[in-house]
Amino acid sequence: MSRSSVQLKTPKGTRDWVGDDLLLRENIFKTITDVFKRHGGTPLDTPVFELKEILSEKYGEDSRLMYGLEDQGGEICSLRFDLTVPFARWLAMNGNVTHIKRYQIAKVYRRDQPAIARGRLREFHQCDFDIAGVYDPMVPDAEILCVIAEVFEALGLDVTIKVNHRRILDGLFAVAGVSDEKIRSISSAVDKLDKMPWDDVKKEMQEKGLSDKVADQVGEYVRCSGNIFDMLDDLNSNENLTANEDVSAGIADMGLLACYMRAFGIEQKVSFDCSLARGLDYYSGLIFEVIMRPSGEPEPQSKAQTNQVGSIAAGGRYDNLVGMYGKRPIPCVGISFGVDRIFTILQPKPEKGLKISSAVSRNLDVYVMALGDKEFDGLLPERMAVTRQLWKAGIRAEYLAKVKPKSLQQFKASMGVPLAVILGQDELAAGQVRLKVFRPEAEEEKDLGQLISMENLVEEIKKLL
Amino acid sequence: MSRSSVQLKTPKGTRDWVGDDLLLRENIFKTITDVFKRHGGTPLDTPVFELKEILSEKYGEDSRLMYGLEDQGGEICSLRFDLTVPFARWLAMNGNVTHIKRYQIAKVYRRDQPAIARGRLREFHQCDFDIAGVYDPMVPDAEILCVIAEVFEALGLDVTIKVNHRRILDGLFAVAGVSDEKIRSISSAVDKLDKMPWDDVKKEMQEKGLSDKVADQVGEYVRCSGNIFDMLDDLNSNENLTANEDVSAGIADMGLLACYMRAFGIEQKVSFDCSLARGLDYYSGLIFEVIMRPSGEPEPQSKAQTNQVGSIAAGGRYDNLVGMYGKRPIPCVGISFGVDRIFTILQPKPEKGLKISSAVSRNLDVYVMALGDKEFDGLLPERMAVTRQLWKAGIRAEYLAKVKPKSLQQFKASMGVPLAVILGQDELAAGQVRLKVFRPEAEEEKDLGQLISMENLVEEIKKLL
Repeated sequence: MSRSSVQLKTPKGTRDWVGDDLLLRENIFKTITDVFKRHGGTPLDTPVFELKEILSEKYGEDSRLMYGLEDQGGEICSLRFDLTVPFARWLAMNGNVTHIKRYQIAKVYRRDQPAIARGRLREFHQCDFDIAGVYDPMVPDAEILCVIAEVFEALGLDVTIKVNHRRILDGLFAVAGVSDEKIRSISSAVDKLDKMPWDDVKKEMQEKGLSDKVADQVGEYVRCSGNIFDMLDDLNSNENLTANEDVSAGIADMGLLACYMRAFGIEQKVSFDCSLARGLDYYSGLIFEVIMRPSGEPEPQSKAQTNQVGSIAAGGRYDNLVGMYGKRPIPCVGISFGVDRIFTILQPKPEKGLKISSAVSRNLDVYVMALGDKEFDGLLPERMAVTRQLWKAGIRAEYLAKVKPKSLQQFKASMGVPLAVILGQDELAAGQVRLKVFRPEAEEEKDLGQLISMENLVEEIKKLL
Repeated sequence: MSRSSVQLKTPKGTRDWVGDDLLLRENIFKTITDVFKRHGGTPLDTPVFELKEILSEKYGEDSRLMYGLEDQGGEICSLRFDLTVPFARWLAMNGNVTHIKRYQIAKVYRRDQPAIARGRLREFHQCDFDIAGVYDPMVPDAEILCVIAEVFEALGLDVTIKVNHRRILDGLFAVAGVSDEKIRSISSAVDKLDKMPWDDVKKEMQEKGLSDKVADQVGEYVRCSGNIFDMLDDLNSNENLTANEDVSAGIADMGLLACYMRAFGIEQKVSFDCSLARGLDYYSGLIFEVIMRPSGEPEPQSKAQTNQVGSIAAGGRYDNLVGMYGKRPIPCVGISFGVDRIFTILQPKPEKGLKISSAVSRNLDVYVMALGDKEFDGLLPERMAVTRQLWKAGIRAEYLAKVKPKSLQQFKASMGVPLAVILGQDELAAGQVRLKVFRPEAEEEKDLGQLISMENLVEEIKKLL
């Protein structure tokens, strides 16, 4: 092994997590998991990579962003791109599971252009909750939207849940004159309306083969959004649209959804947005996306206006994905929370960089030290033996890792720790130690605490904690 | 997307985790993390892949087991092989950290021959605790061994901690006549003594270029193990060995360690084993490995006798690894717990296969149902609204996802849930619901519980939980 001058960094689009950042991230996970559990969720964990053929043809244009593993002989694998396809693979493999609410919190991988400050990473977290099984129409879909509302209530964030229906979207395209084989690619152009002005989206649709007239008709149909009840009225009043089988089936679903949203009291959080398309190929019914609610505006007005972070959760119904693995079909609907973007919003300090000071701070209950005169041997084995008793009792404790520690060094190292156990040669000989409670602004080194019997030490400490 | 007949499996050497298995795994993580926190540990999380050059030349012969990512343009990366090298990379990158106790629990990746029943996987978990920084000799090393003892005490497993010292081992090789450049490869042969008989190891050493005589001398030196105090006496009585600078430095370290083990009261768990070598290149001082203690035997007698699972934790001192990244050196010592093997030992039922029944079981507090006569409309929006109140109050609740549920279906679905809220048209009109406590062997469908006011529902449920 030779000293080398390698590039000292994490790979592009990835980061380390430590200290306050990691603490906040864990708090977000816990908040979300608590909601999942309230809804009867079961946890699942799957491998970080899957057979490549399991993942193939599931992600449309985004597939190019998949990370492949090197061919080292044996199976060809890719890093997981989301948690939905692995869940579908698990369902297909486990034939005795017909109904499940499962959740999973894990990292996923996409070779996208990263923007770390905005929470766009190549290695990022998803928190997924999915309901699989045959139920009455839109009942699980409504519960998923309720889960979304509860998660953001718990996180203290004011959001808008944009919803749309793949069958309405496909029907609108058909009525506007888009041919069947162009629907998915036109859909992916329309999905960019929240990031691009209409003229650019129209240009992309024309490049993808739409005439000027058809493109304009698509634009007219999809650039509508608002309250779900008003939108249903508008759609129902357009006979060109309701004559289309897909549109009318979608409207029926959305009507049920509106009723259930009202039952949950969350209809104000929902905006029906006909331009919402979602890039992934596997969605088949309701689709949704969550954005921060622009302050002061009940509805986002300008389509090109987006906040910096983009969508912070997204999902939809995918009834055909499990069946694609050649066995029985199981209809599913689910949501994926983008924890890294939520983290970016909740982060108290927007400046970049790790707060290393807190990274190395410890949460300790007791500092074990020894004091004595010049001849004093440091009592290291004795400090170890006492600390071991504390550890055994579940108490968080530390001592200075020096054979002959200076008293000042020990007091410095104990900063921020509430209690100290102080050992001395004479006290030990009498089976005693000193137990000291640190008080702010006291003359620390003069107050050496109460003498107590070694036997009572754990008990006395537990009383004070 | 077409229906395809892909192979429905997880990649070789990987598995899904769900239900009781996942619960047990999480309990093991929690038990270990609690010990780490008692010792003042700080959590760290790093990316699942690293720049390949960061990982290169750190793992000796095992490097061939590393998973590479496909070259898709841009940086060349590999999946992490352990958590030690990423920690060293993090230390090298964060110059203001001079002392830290860090822990990390994460999956690591090795393209080894898997044996899933014995807990040998290609994707497996490590739980690492490391102490970085300059301290008095062997004090952090001793604390690491104490952490090991406490983790296995907490898990209820009786283990032996085998220890050795790289400088003693290197010194023994030198005195036996092994040339410097052969030491690492001979060391890796010696490390196999716990899995192979001596004759096979000797043959490997001869193939690696040792003469018969040198090989036998190596065999004589390394096939010694036992109580740390006795072993130190034996080594000290051999002047050929103590004349070697490495051996005598190692003996001094082991003498300190023996003293600190006694202070912690864990000297009976430690066995000094001169054949322990550890394959990884980066170790520089104390090395250790934990095995299940063969029942009834205070010391494992036969070197070839191993239990099925092999080592369940391992680690050592690596003083030069951080410095290899071209900046300041930071001495470190750490331990890695092999959670998958520990899981295999603790698993209550050795039979293979997931317990799907419990995988889909939910932990619910309340089942919300509706009963009525034939005209009854199922009260789905009402069940949703009531359940939403419970969710908001942090209560785990569910209802049947059917518009018109049959009463039997609802009672069946509520199996195992302690409480039910029962809605009826007339009661609702009066602002009331029924709250029922399920009792085993009661006539469930006749007892419909107490009538209570809707306003008091959450409060009454919280009293009962």
